[in-house]
Amino acid sequence: MSSFAERLTVLDNPRADRVRRVSGLVGRSARSRSGLMLVEGPQAVRELAAHRPDAVRDVYVREDAWQTHADVVDAARRATRWVHPVTAEVSTAMSGDSQGICAVASVDAISRELPEPSVGETIVVIAQGRDPGNVGTIIRTADAFGAVGVVVVAGTVDASSPKVVRSSAGSVFHIPVCVVASFTDARTLVHVRSAALLGTSGGAGSLSLSDLLVQGLSARSRLSQSHAWVFGNEARGLSGEEMRLCDALVSIPMAGEAESLNVASAAATCLFASQTVRGVGN
Amino acid sequence: MSSFAERLTVLDNPRADRVRRVSGLVGRSARSRSGLMLVEGPQAVRELAAHRPDAVRDVYVREDAWQTHADVVDAARRATRWVHPVTAEVSTAMSGDSQGICAVASVDAISRELPEPSVGETIVVIAQGRDPGNVGTIIRTADAFGAVGVVVVAGTVDASSPKVVRSSAGSVFHIPVCVVASFTDARTLVHVRSAALLGTSGGAGSLSLSDLLVQGLSARSRLSQSHAWVFGNEARGLSGEEMRLCDALVSIPMAGEAESLNVASAAATCLFASQTVRGVGN
Repeated sequence: MSSFAERLTVLDNPRADRVRRVSGLVGRSARSRSGLMLVEGPQAVRELAAHRPDAVRDVYVREDAWQTHADVVDAARRATRWVHPVTAEVSTAMSGDSQGICAVASVDAISRELPEPSVGETIVVIAQGRDPGNVGTIIRTADAFGAVGVVVVAGTVDASSPKVVRSSAGSVFHIPVCVVASFTDARTLVHVRSAALLGTSGGAGSLSLSDLLVQGLSARSRLSQSHAWVFGNEARGLSGEEMRLCDALVSIPMAGEAESLNVASAAATCLFASQTVRGVGN
Repeated sequence: MSSFAERLTVLDNPRADRVRRVSGLVGRSARSRSGLMLVEGPQAVRELAAHRPDAVRDVYVREDAWQTHADVVDAARRATRWVHPVTAEVSTAMSGDSQGICAVASVDAISRELPEPSVGETIVVIAQGRDPGNVGTIIRTADAFGAVGVVVVAGTVDASSPKVVRSSAGSVFHIPVCVVASFTDARTLVHVRSAALLGTSGGAGSLSLSDLLVQGLSARSRLSQSHAWVFGNEARGLSGEEMRLCDALVSIPMAGEAESLNVASAAATCLFASQTVRGVGN
Protein backbone atom coordinates (compact mmCIF):
# COMPACT_ATOMS: atom_id res chain seq x y z
CA MET A 1 0.00 0.00 0.00
CA SER A 2 1.27 3.45 -0.87
CA SER A 3 2.00 5.59 2.13
CA PHE A 4 0.32 8.98 2.35
CA ALA A 5 2.44 11.73 0.81
CA GLU A 6 5.21 9.43 -0.30
CA ARG A 7 6.34 11.86 -2.98
CA LEU A 8 4.22 14.95 -3.38
CA THR A 9 3.49 17.77 -0.99
CA VAL A 10 0.10 17.74 0.71
CA LEU A 11 -2.13 20.37 -0.88
CA ASP A 12 -3.67 22.28 2.00
CA ASN A 13 -4.94 25.60 0.64
CA PRO A 14 -8.64 25.37 -0.30
CA ARG A 15 -8.44 28.82 -1.89
CA ALA A 16 -5.56 27.96 -4.26
CA ASP A 17 -6.01 28.57 -8.00
CA ARG A 18 -5.61 24.88 -8.68
CA VAL A 19 -8.53 24.05 -6.38
CA ARG A 20 -10.75 26.58 -8.12
CA ARG A 21 -9.76 25.22 -11.53
CA VAL A 22 -10.71 21.69 -10.47
CA SER A 23 -14.06 22.61 -8.90
CA GLY A 24 -14.79 24.87 -11.89
CA LEU A 25 -14.94 21.78 -14.14
CA VAL A 26 -18.55 21.23 -13.05
CA GLY A 27 -19.28 23.96 -15.64
CA ARG A 28 -19.63 22.95 -19.27
CA SER A 29 -17.85 26.05 -20.58
CA ALA A 30 -14.79 25.41 -18.36
CA ARG A 31 -14.64 21.86 -19.70
CA SER A 32 -14.80 22.88 -23.33
CA ARG A 33 -12.28 25.69 -22.78
CA SER A 34 -9.76 23.47 -20.99
CA GLY A 35 -10.50 20.12 -22.61
CA LEU A 36 -10.55 18.67 -19.10
CA MET A 37 -13.19 16.92 -17.01
CA LEU A 38 -13.68 16.15 -13.31
CA VAL A 39 -14.10 12.53 -12.26
CA GLU A 40 -15.47 12.04 -8.73
CA GLY A 41 -15.45 9.08 -6.37
CA PRO A 42 -13.43 5.86 -6.06
CA GLN A 43 -15.53 3.82 -8.49
CA ALA A 44 -15.35 6.31 -11.36
CA VAL A 45 -11.64 7.06 -10.75
CA ARG A 46 -10.89 3.31 -10.71
CA GLU A 47 -12.60 2.81 -14.09
CA LEU A 48 -10.86 5.88 -15.53
CA ALA A 49 -7.42 4.69 -14.42
CA ALA A 50 -8.04 1.12 -15.62
CA HIS A 51 -9.60 1.91 -19.01
CA ARG A 52 -8.16 5.31 -20.00
CA PRO A 53 -4.85 5.65 -18.13
CA ASP A 54 -3.43 7.92 -20.85
CA ALA A 55 -6.24 10.45 -20.23
CA VAL A 56 -5.51 10.87 -16.50
CA ARG A 57 -3.91 14.21 -15.60
CA ASP A 58 -4.04 14.62 -11.81
CA VAL A 59 -5.60 12.62 -9.02
CA TYR A 60 -6.42 14.12 -5.60
CA VAL A 61 -6.73 11.87 -2.57
CA ARG A 62 -7.76 12.71 1.00
CA GLU A 63 -5.71 11.03 3.73
CA ASP A 64 -8.36 8.55 4.90
CA ALA A 65 -9.28 7.67 1.29
CA TRP A 66 -5.61 6.88 0.64
CA GLN A 67 -6.05 4.06 3.16
CA THR A 68 -9.59 2.85 2.47
CA HIS A 69 -9.22 2.92 -1.31
CA ALA A 70 -5.61 1.75 -1.62
CA ASP A 71 -6.43 -0.25 -4.79
CA VAL A 72 -7.74 2.90 -6.51
CA VAL A 73 -4.68 4.88 -5.43
CA ASP A 74 -2.39 2.16 -6.81
CA ALA A 75 -4.26 2.11 -10.14
CA ALA A 76 -4.08 5.92 -10.26
CA ARG A 77 -0.31 5.83 -9.61
CA ARG A 78 0.18 3.40 -12.46
CA ALA A 79 -1.62 5.91 -14.71
CA THR A 80 0.13 9.11 -13.57
CA ARG A 81 2.85 10.34 -11.24
CA TRP A 82 0.55 13.23 -10.25
CA VAL A 83 -1.37 11.61 -7.43
CA HIS A 84 -1.63 14.37 -4.83
CA PRO A 85 -2.43 14.00 -1.16
CA VAL A 86 -4.90 16.69 -0.09
CA THR A 87 -6.42 17.83 3.18
CA ALA A 88 -10.10 17.21 3.91
CA GLU A 89 -10.77 20.92 3.36
CA VAL A 90 -9.18 20.89 -0.10
CA SER A 91 -10.96 17.67 -1.00
CA THR A 92 -14.33 19.19 -0.10
CA ALA A 93 -13.51 22.42 -1.94
CA MET A 94 -12.69 20.45 -5.10
CA SER A 95 -15.80 18.28 -5.03
CA GLY A 96 -18.63 17.67 -2.59
CA ASP A 97 -19.27 14.19 -3.95
CA SER A 98 -15.88 12.55 -4.24
CA GLN A 99 -15.73 10.40 -1.08
CA GLY A 100 -12.18 11.74 -0.88
CA ILE A 101 -10.93 10.79 -4.37
CA CYS A 102 -11.27 12.78 -7.55
CA ALA A 103 -9.34 13.04 -10.80
CA VAL A 104 -8.88 15.52 -13.59
CA ALA A 105 -8.77 13.86 -17.01
CA SER A 106 -8.74 14.86 -20.65
CA VAL A 107 -12.28 14.91 -22.05
CA ASP A 108 -10.93 12.41 -24.61
CA ALA A 109 -11.30 9.83 -21.84
CA ILE A 110 -14.81 9.40 -23.25
CA SER A 111 -14.70 7.78 -26.68
CA ARG A 112 -17.00 9.57 -29.11
CA GLU A 113 -16.98 7.07 -32.01
CA LEU A 114 -19.18 4.01 -32.32
CA PRO A 115 -17.32 0.80 -33.29
CA GLU A 116 -17.78 -0.85 -36.70
CA PRO A 117 -21.33 -2.18 -37.07
CA SER A 118 -21.94 -5.77 -35.96
CA VAL A 119 -24.85 -8.07 -36.78
CA GLY A 120 -27.71 -7.96 -34.29
CA GLU A 121 -26.18 -5.12 -32.28
CA THR A 122 -28.04 -2.93 -29.78
CA ILE A 123 -27.54 0.84 -29.67
CA VAL A 124 -29.03 3.41 -27.28
CA VAL A 125 -30.23 6.85 -28.36
CA ILE A 126 -31.00 9.48 -25.70
CA ALA A 127 -33.10 12.39 -26.93
CA GLN A 128 -33.41 15.42 -24.65
CA GLY A 129 -32.44 13.70 -21.41
CA ARG A 130 -32.16 16.49 -18.84
CA ASP A 131 -31.44 14.68 -15.60
CA PRO A 132 -27.75 13.75 -15.17
CA GLY A 133 -28.64 10.89 -12.81
CA ASN A 134 -30.93 9.32 -15.38
CA VAL A 135 -28.53 9.82 -18.29
CA GLY A 136 -25.59 8.36 -16.34
CA THR A 137 -27.69 5.41 -15.18
CA ILE A 138 -28.80 4.69 -18.76
CA ILE A 139 -25.14 4.73 -19.91
CA ARG A 140 -24.25 2.32 -17.08
CA THR A 141 -27.10 -0.01 -18.05
CA ALA A 142 -26.22 0.16 -21.77
CA ASP A 143 -22.68 -0.85 -20.84
CA ALA A 144 -23.85 -3.66 -18.51
CA PHE A 145 -26.20 -5.21 -21.05
CA GLY A 146 -23.69 -5.11 -23.92
CA ALA A 147 -24.97 -2.27 -26.11
CA VAL A 148 -22.26 -1.14 -28.58
CA GLY A 149 -22.67 2.55 -27.87
CA VAL A 150 -24.83 5.45 -26.78
CA VAL A 151 -25.87 8.27 -29.12
CA VAL A 152 -26.94 11.48 -27.39
CA VAL A 153 -28.83 14.17 -29.23
CA ALA A 154 -27.69 17.75 -28.58
CA GLY A 155 -29.82 19.18 -25.78
CA THR A 156 -29.17 16.14 -23.60
CA VAL A 157 -26.91 16.73 -20.59
CA ASP A 158 -23.21 16.49 -21.36
CA ALA A 159 -21.72 13.02 -20.71
CA SER A 160 -18.53 14.63 -19.36
CA SER A 161 -20.42 16.42 -16.58
CA PRO A 162 -19.34 15.12 -13.16
CA LYS A 163 -22.84 14.00 -12.19
CA VAL A 164 -23.30 11.94 -15.36
CA VAL A 165 -19.84 10.35 -14.91
CA ARG A 166 -20.65 9.50 -11.29
CA SER A 167 -24.06 7.98 -11.95
CA SER A 168 -22.59 6.00 -14.84
CA ALA A 169 -20.24 4.42 -12.21
CA GLY A 170 -17.44 4.99 -14.72
CA SER A 171 -19.21 3.29 -17.64
CA VAL A 172 -18.58 6.44 -19.73
CA PHE A 173 -14.98 5.13 -19.90
CA HIS A 174 -16.09 1.73 -21.29
CA ILE A 175 -18.72 2.51 -23.89
CA PRO A 176 -18.63 5.20 -26.60
CA VAL A 177 -20.95 8.16 -26.13
CA CYS A 178 -21.40 9.87 -29.47
CA VAL A 179 -23.04 13.32 -29.74
CA VAL A 180 -25.18 14.27 -32.74
CA ALA A 181 -26.71 17.62 -33.57
CA SER A 182 -30.28 16.50 -34.12
CA PHE A 183 -32.67 13.59 -33.88
CA THR A 184 -32.55 13.28 -37.67
CA ASP A 185 -28.77 12.84 -37.46
CA ALA A 186 -29.21 10.10 -34.87
CA ARG A 187 -31.67 8.37 -37.20
CA THR A 188 -29.26 8.57 -40.13
CA LEU A 189 -26.40 7.20 -38.03
CA VAL A 190 -28.56 4.27 -36.89
CA HIS A 191 -29.89 3.56 -40.39
CA VAL A 192 -26.40 3.57 -41.92
CA ARG A 193 -25.69 0.66 -39.55
CA SER A 194 -28.79 -1.17 -40.88
CA ALA A 195 -30.38 -0.89 -37.46
CA ALA A 196 -34.02 -0.06 -36.78
CA LEU A 197 -34.99 2.87 -34.57
CA LEU A 198 -37.30 1.61 -31.79
CA GLY A 199 -39.02 4.41 -29.90
CA THR A 200 -40.26 3.73 -26.38
CA SER A 201 -43.80 4.92 -25.88
CA GLY A 202 -46.70 4.31 -23.55
CA GLY A 203 -49.11 4.89 -26.41
CA ALA A 204 -51.61 2.52 -27.93
CA GLY A 205 -50.87 0.91 -31.28
CA SER A 206 -47.31 0.15 -30.24
CA LEU A 207 -45.58 -3.21 -30.23
CA SER A 208 -45.32 -4.83 -26.81
CA LEU A 209 -41.84 -5.37 -25.36
CA SER A 210 -42.97 -8.67 -23.82
CA ASP A 211 -44.15 -9.91 -27.23
CA LEU A 212 -40.87 -8.87 -28.87
CA LEU A 213 -38.98 -10.72 -26.15
CA VAL A 214 -41.08 -13.90 -26.19
CA GLN A 215 -41.13 -14.06 -30.02
CA GLY A 216 -37.42 -13.29 -30.22
CA LEU A 217 -36.65 -16.24 -27.95
CA SER A 218 -38.43 -18.84 -30.07
CA ALA A 219 -38.22 -17.39 -33.59
CA ARG A 220 -37.34 -13.87 -34.63
CA SER A 221 -38.51 -10.42 -33.66
CA ARG A 222 -37.32 -6.84 -34.05
CA LEU A 223 -34.88 -7.58 -31.23
CA SER A 224 -33.16 -10.33 -33.27
CA GLN A 225 -31.92 -7.70 -35.72
CA SER A 226 -29.76 -4.64 -35.16
CA HIS A 227 -31.77 -2.01 -33.36
CA ALA A 228 -31.46 1.25 -31.46
CA TRP A 229 -33.63 1.97 -28.43
CA VAL A 230 -34.71 5.59 -28.24
CA PHE A 231 -35.37 7.09 -24.80
CA GLY A 232 -36.91 10.54 -24.57
CA ASN A 233 -37.15 13.32 -22.04
CA GLU A 234 -37.87 12.08 -18.49
CA ALA A 235 -40.96 14.23 -18.04
CA ARG A 236 -42.47 14.39 -21.53
CA GLY A 237 -41.17 11.26 -23.27
CA LEU A 238 -40.58 11.40 -27.02
CA SER A 239 -42.10 14.27 -29.01
CA GLY A 240 -44.60 13.58 -31.78
CA GLU A 241 -41.94 14.39 -34.37
CA GLU A 242 -39.41 12.03 -32.74
CA MET A 243 -42.00 9.24 -32.67
CA ARG A 244 -42.81 9.77 -36.37
CA LEU A 245 -39.11 9.38 -37.20
CA CYS A 246 -38.88 5.98 -35.45
CA ASP A 247 -39.27 2.75 -37.42
CA ALA A 248 -41.49 1.25 -34.71
CA LEU A 249 -42.89 2.24 -31.34
CA VAL A 250 -42.61 -0.19 -28.46
CA SER A 251 -44.51 -0.02 -25.19
CA ILE A 252 -43.56 -1.75 -21.97
CA PRO A 253 -46.62 -3.59 -20.63
CA MET A 254 -47.44 -2.70 -17.04
CA ALA A 255 -49.82 -4.87 -15.02
CA GLY A 256 -50.01 -2.40 -12.11
CA GLU A 257 -51.37 1.07 -11.47
CA ALA A 258 -48.33 3.27 -12.12
CA GLU A 259 -48.82 5.45 -15.17
CA SER A 260 -45.24 5.11 -16.37
CA LEU A 261 -41.74 3.99 -15.44
CA ASN A 262 -38.76 6.16 -14.65
CA VAL A 263 -36.82 6.50 -17.94
CA ALA A 264 -33.75 4.69 -16.59
CA SER A 265 -35.95 1.82 -15.36
CA ALA A 266 -37.55 1.65 -18.82
CA ALA A 267 -34.06 1.51 -20.35
CA ALA A 268 -33.05 -1.35 -18.04
CA THR A 269 -36.13 -3.29 -19.07
CA CYS A 270 -35.61 -2.80 -22.82
CA LEU A 271 -31.87 -3.47 -22.75
CA PHE A 272 -32.30 -6.63 -20.69
CA ALA A 273 -34.86 -7.87 -23.23
CA SER A 274 -32.40 -7.16 -26.07
CA GLN A 275 -29.57 -8.95 -24.31
CA THR A 276 -31.78 -11.95 -23.54
CA VAL A 277 -32.79 -12.29 -27.21
CA ARG A 278 -29.17 -11.83 -28.38
CA GLY A 279 -28.02 -14.48 -25.92
CA VAL A 280 -30.33 -17.08 -27.44
CA GLY A 281 -29.45 -16.07 -31.00
CA ASN A 282 -25.72 -16.51 -30.43
CA MET B 1 -61.20 25.56 -14.34
CA SER B 2 -61.11 26.91 -10.81
CA SER B 3 -60.18 30.55 -10.60
CA PHE B 4 -57.25 31.53 -8.39
CA ALA B 5 -58.34 32.34 -4.85
CA GLU B 6 -61.96 31.57 -5.46
CA ARG B 7 -62.59 30.95 -1.78
CA LEU B 8 -59.54 31.14 0.42
CA THR B 9 -57.19 34.00 1.20
CA VAL B 10 -53.83 33.94 -0.54
CA LEU B 11 -51.13 32.88 1.92
CA ASP B 12 -48.33 35.39 1.49
CA ASN B 13 -46.15 35.21 4.61
CA PRO B 14 -43.20 32.84 4.09
CA ARG B 15 -42.33 33.17 7.78
CA ALA B 16 -45.74 32.07 9.06
CA ASP B 17 -45.94 29.18 11.53
CA ARG B 18 -47.97 27.18 9.04
CA VAL B 19 -45.22 27.45 6.43
CA ARG B 20 -42.60 26.24 8.90
CA ARG B 21 -44.81 23.34 9.94
CA VAL B 22 -45.18 22.26 6.30
CA SER B 23 -41.49 22.54 5.39
CA GLY B 24 -40.58 20.82 8.68
CA LEU B 25 -42.24 17.63 7.44
CA VAL B 26 -39.04 16.77 5.57
CA GLY B 27 -37.86 15.59 8.98
CA ARG B 28 -38.79 12.11 10.15
CA SER B 29 -39.39 13.13 13.76
CA ALA B 30 -41.83 15.89 12.72
CA ARG B 31 -43.74 13.33 10.65
CA SER B 32 -44.01 10.79 13.44
CA ARG B 33 -44.94 13.50 15.98
CA SER B 34 -47.68 15.00 13.79
CA GLY B 35 -48.76 11.93 11.83
CA LEU B 36 -48.54 14.10 8.71
CA MET B 37 -46.44 13.92 5.54
CA LEU B 38 -45.49 16.35 2.77
CA VAL B 39 -46.36 15.43 -0.82
CA GLU B 40 -44.57 17.50 -3.48
CA GLY B 41 -45.26 18.10 -7.16
CA PRO B 42 -48.32 17.78 -9.41
CA GLN B 43 -47.85 14.08 -10.20
CA ALA B 44 -47.64 12.93 -6.57
CA VAL B 45 -50.47 15.26 -5.46
CA ARG B 46 -52.66 13.96 -8.30
CA GLU B 47 -52.13 10.35 -7.22
CA LEU B 48 -52.72 11.24 -3.57
CA ALA B 49 -55.99 13.03 -4.33
CA ALA B 50 -57.19 10.28 -6.67
CA HIS B 51 -56.26 7.24 -4.52
CA ARG B 52 -56.35 8.53 -0.92
CA PRO B 53 -58.72 11.52 -0.93
CA ASP B 54 -59.64 10.93 2.72
CA ALA B 55 -55.98 11.36 3.75
CA VAL B 56 -55.61 14.83 2.21
CA ARG B 57 -55.43 17.66 4.76
CA ASP B 58 -54.29 20.84 2.95
CA VAL B 59 -53.11 21.56 -0.57
CA TYR B 60 -50.99 24.61 -1.45
CA VAL B 61 -50.97 25.94 -5.00
CA ARG B 62 -48.89 28.74 -6.54
CA GLU B 63 -50.79 31.03 -8.92
CA ASP B 64 -49.21 29.82 -12.16
CA ALA B 65 -49.57 26.16 -11.08
CA TRP B 66 -53.29 26.80 -10.50
CA GLN B 67 -53.50 27.42 -14.23
CA THR B 68 -51.04 24.88 -15.65
CA HIS B 69 -52.19 22.02 -13.42
CA ALA B 70 -55.92 22.75 -13.33
CA ASP B 71 -56.71 19.01 -13.38
CA VAL B 72 -54.68 18.45 -10.22
CA VAL B 73 -56.31 21.42 -8.51
CA ASP B 74 -59.75 20.07 -9.40
CA ALA B 75 -58.87 16.63 -8.03
CA ALA B 76 -57.51 18.27 -4.87
CA ARG B 77 -60.72 20.28 -4.44
CA ARG B 78 -62.79 17.14 -4.69
CA ALA B 79 -60.68 15.70 -1.85
CA THR B 80 -60.64 18.72 0.49
CA ARG B 81 -62.01 22.25 0.82
CA TRP B 82 -58.56 23.34 2.04
CA VAL B 83 -56.89 24.11 -1.27
CA HIS B 84 -54.94 27.30 -0.57
CA PRO B 85 -53.56 29.74 -3.09
CA VAL B 86 -50.02 30.77 -2.11
CA THR B 87 -47.47 33.26 -3.35
CA ALA B 88 -44.30 32.07 -5.11
CA GLU B 89 -42.31 32.96 -2.00
CA VAL B 90 -44.52 30.85 0.28
CA SER B 91 -44.47 27.99 -2.21
CA THR B 92 -40.65 27.98 -2.28
CA ALA B 93 -40.48 28.25 1.51
CA MET B 94 -42.73 25.20 1.87
CA SER B 95 -40.85 23.05 -0.63
CA GLY B 96 -38.07 23.57 -3.13
CA ASP B 97 -39.24 20.70 -5.31
CA SER B 98 -42.96 21.14 -5.66
CA GLN B 99 -43.30 22.79 -9.08
CA GLY B 100 -45.83 24.99 -7.31
CA ILE B 101 -48.09 22.29 -5.83
CA CYS B 102 -47.71 20.47 -2.56
CA ALA B 103 -50.02 18.78 -0.11
CA VAL B 104 -50.04 17.81 3.52
CA ALA B 105 -51.60 14.40 4.12
CA SER B 106 -52.05 11.93 6.93
CA VAL B 107 -49.23 9.38 6.95
CA ASP B 108 -52.03 6.79 6.68
CA ALA B 109 -52.13 7.73 2.98
CA ILE B 110 -49.54 4.98 2.62
CA SER B 111 -51.08 1.58 3.25
CA ARG B 112 -48.88 -0.54 5.51
CA GLU B 113 -50.59 -3.92 5.11
CA LEU B 114 -49.98 -6.44 2.35
CA PRO B 115 -53.16 -7.83 0.75
CA GLU B 116 -54.22 -11.46 1.21
CA PRO B 117 -51.72 -13.80 -0.48
CA SER B 118 -52.43 -14.73 -4.09
CA VAL B 119 -50.99 -17.57 -6.14
CA GLY B 120 -47.84 -16.73 -8.07
CA GLU B 121 -47.56 -13.26 -6.57
CA THR B 122 -44.44 -11.07 -6.65
CA ILE B 123 -43.30 -9.14 -3.58
CA VAL B 124 -40.38 -6.70 -3.20
CA VAL B 125 -38.14 -6.56 -0.13
CA ILE B 126 -35.79 -3.59 0.30
CA ALA B 127 -33.01 -4.18 2.83
CA GLN B 128 -30.96 -1.15 3.93
CA GLY B 129 -31.81 1.10 0.97
CA ARG B 130 -30.30 4.49 1.84
CA ASP B 131 -30.95 6.60 -1.26
CA PRO B 132 -34.49 8.03 -1.38
CA GLY B 133 -34.34 8.30 -5.18
CA ASN B 134 -33.56 4.61 -5.54
CA VAL B 135 -36.13 3.50 -2.96
CA GLY B 136 -38.87 5.63 -4.54
CA THR B 137 -37.98 4.39 -8.02
CA ILE B 138 -38.11 0.75 -6.85
CA ILE B 139 -41.59 1.36 -5.34
CA ARG B 140 -42.72 2.94 -8.63
CA THR B 141 -41.39 -0.03 -10.61
CA ALA B 142 -42.94 -2.57 -8.22
CA ASP B 143 -46.28 -0.81 -8.73
CA ALA B 144 -45.85 -0.65 -12.53
CA PHE B 145 -45.01 -4.33 -12.89
CA GLY B 146 -47.83 -5.54 -10.65
CA ALA B 147 -46.05 -6.58 -7.46
CA VAL B 148 -48.52 -6.95 -4.57
CA GLY B 149 -46.48 -4.94 -2.10
CA VAL B 150 -43.13 -3.67 -0.87
CA VAL B 151 -41.58 -4.75 2.43
CA VAL B 152 -38.91 -2.41 3.79
CA VAL B 153 -36.56 -3.48 6.51
CA ALA B 154 -35.93 -0.92 9.29
CA GLY B 155 -32.83 1.08 8.39
CA THR B 156 -34.16 1.74 4.88
CA VAL B 157 -35.22 5.35 4.21
CA ASP B 158 -38.77 6.13 5.30
CA ALA B 159 -41.37 5.75 2.52
CA SER B 160 -43.21 8.84 3.79
CA SER B 161 -40.17 11.08 3.23
CA PRO B 162 -40.88 13.69 0.55
CA LYS B 163 -38.04 12.51 -1.71
CA VAL B 164 -39.21 8.91 -1.70
CA VAL B 165 -42.79 9.99 -2.41
CA ARG B 166 -41.63 12.19 -5.29
CA SER B 167 -39.39 9.60 -6.93
CA SER B 168 -42.16 7.03 -6.55
CA ALA B 169 -44.28 9.38 -8.73
CA GLY B 170 -47.09 8.80 -6.25
CA SER B 171 -46.88 4.99 -6.39
CA VAL B 172 -46.64 4.96 -2.57
CA PHE B 173 -50.38 5.73 -2.69
CA HIS B 174 -51.13 2.69 -4.90
CA ILE B 175 -49.08 -0.13 -3.44
CA PRO B 176 -48.66 -1.10 0.23
CA VAL B 177 -45.28 -0.38 1.81
CA CYS B 178 -44.94 -2.48 4.92
CA VAL B 179 -42.13 -1.86 7.46
CA VAL B 180 -40.55 -4.74 9.39
CA ALA B 181 -37.99 -4.57 12.17
CA SER B 182 -35.43 -6.97 10.76
CA PHE B 183 -34.48 -9.03 7.75
CA THR B 184 -35.58 -12.14 9.64
CA ASP B 185 -39.04 -10.62 10.05
CA ALA B 186 -39.19 -9.92 6.31
CA ARG B 187 -38.28 -13.54 5.66
CA THR B 188 -41.00 -14.81 8.01
CA LEU B 189 -43.60 -12.56 6.41
CA VAL B 190 -42.64 -13.82 2.94
CA HIS B 191 -42.56 -17.46 4.00
CA VAL B 192 -45.98 -17.24 5.67
CA ARG B 193 -47.27 -16.33 2.21
CA SER B 194 -45.60 -19.47 0.76
CA ALA B 195 -43.30 -17.26 -1.29
CA ALA B 196 -39.58 -17.87 -1.84
CA LEU B 197 -37.02 -15.22 -0.95
CA LEU B 198 -34.87 -14.51 -4.03
CA GLY B 199 -31.76 -12.46 -3.25
CA THR B 200 -30.14 -10.47 -6.04
CA SER B 201 -26.42 -11.00 -6.18
CA GLY B 202 -23.60 -10.63 -8.64
CA GLY B 203 -21.87 -13.64 -7.13
CA ALA B 204 -21.02 -16.96 -8.72
CA GLY B 205 -23.11 -20.02 -7.97
CA SER B 206 -26.31 -18.04 -8.36
CA LEU B 207 -29.21 -18.78 -10.65
CA SER B 208 -29.33 -16.65 -13.80
CA LEU B 209 -32.29 -14.30 -14.22
CA SER B 210 -32.29 -14.99 -17.98
CA ASP B 211 -32.55 -18.74 -17.35
CA LEU B 212 -35.39 -18.24 -14.85
CA LEU B 213 -37.19 -16.09 -17.41
CA VAL B 214 -36.67 -18.39 -20.40
CA GLN B 215 -37.57 -21.53 -18.41
CA GLY B 216 -40.57 -19.82 -16.83
CA LEU B 217 -41.94 -18.99 -20.28
CA SER B 218 -41.94 -22.55 -21.59
CA ALA B 219 -42.34 -24.62 -18.43
CA ARG B 220 -41.89 -23.57 -14.82
CA SER B 221 -39.21 -21.77 -12.88
CA ARG B 222 -38.88 -20.02 -9.53
CA LEU B 223 -40.68 -17.08 -11.13
CA SER B 224 -43.79 -19.20 -11.80
CA GLN B 225 -44.36 -19.51 -8.05
CA SER B 226 -44.88 -16.83 -5.42
CA HIS B 227 -41.59 -15.06 -4.78
CA ALA B 228 -40.09 -11.99 -3.16
CA TRP B 229 -37.19 -10.15 -4.78
CA VAL B 230 -34.70 -8.85 -2.23
CA PHE B 231 -32.70 -5.73 -3.10
CA GLY B 232 -29.86 -4.67 -0.84
CA ASN B 233 -27.94 -1.52 -0.06
CA GLU B 234 -27.01 0.48 -3.21
CA ALA B 235 -23.29 0.50 -2.45
CA ARG B 236 -22.69 -2.83 -0.73
CA GLY B 237 -25.54 -5.06 -1.96
CA LEU B 238 -26.84 -7.76 0.38
CA SER B 239 -24.79 -8.71 3.42
CA GLY B 240 -23.48 -12.27 3.83
CA GLU B 241 -26.09 -12.90 6.52
CA GLU B 242 -28.94 -11.57 4.33
CA MET B 243 -27.78 -13.81 1.47
CA ARG B 244 -27.70 -16.86 3.75
CA LEU B 245 -31.29 -16.18 4.77
CA CYS B 246 -32.50 -16.16 1.14
CA ASP B 247 -33.95 -19.31 -0.44
CA ALA B 248 -31.99 -18.72 -3.66
CA LEU B 249 -29.58 -16.17 -5.06
CA VAL B 250 -30.18 -14.82 -8.55
CA SER B 251 -27.68 -12.92 -10.66
CA ILE B 252 -28.50 -10.72 -13.62
CA PRO B 253 -26.26 -11.73 -16.53
CA MET B 254 -24.34 -8.79 -18.00
CA ALA B 255 -22.66 -9.11 -21.39
CA GLY B 256 -20.82 -5.80 -21.10
CA GLU B 257 -18.05 -4.32 -18.98
CA ALA B 258 -19.96 -2.63 -16.16
CA GLU B 259 -19.35 -4.33 -12.84
CA SER B 260 -22.91 -3.94 -11.63
CA LEU B 261 -26.24 -2.24 -12.24
CA ASN B 262 -27.80 0.57 -10.26
CA VAL B 263 -30.11 -1.12 -7.72
CA ALA B 264 -33.26 0.45 -9.20
CA SER B 265 -32.22 -0.75 -12.69
CA ALA B 266 -31.66 -4.23 -11.26
CA ALA B 267 -35.15 -4.08 -9.73
CA ALA B 268 -36.69 -3.06 -13.07
CA THR B 269 -35.02 -6.01 -14.76
CA CYS B 270 -36.13 -8.59 -12.16
CA LEU B 271 -39.68 -7.27 -11.86
CA PHE B 272 -40.14 -7.18 -15.64
CA ALA B 273 -38.98 -10.81 -15.80
CA SER B 274 -41.50 -11.76 -13.09
CA GLN B 275 -44.33 -9.96 -14.85
CA THR B 276 -43.45 -11.58 -18.19
CA VAL B 277 -43.53 -15.07 -16.65
CA ARG B 278 -46.81 -14.31 -14.81
CA GLY B 279 -48.36 -13.04 -18.02
CA VAL B 280 -47.71 -16.33 -19.79
CA GLY B 281 -48.87 -18.41 -16.82
CA ASN B 282 -52.23 -16.64 -16.58
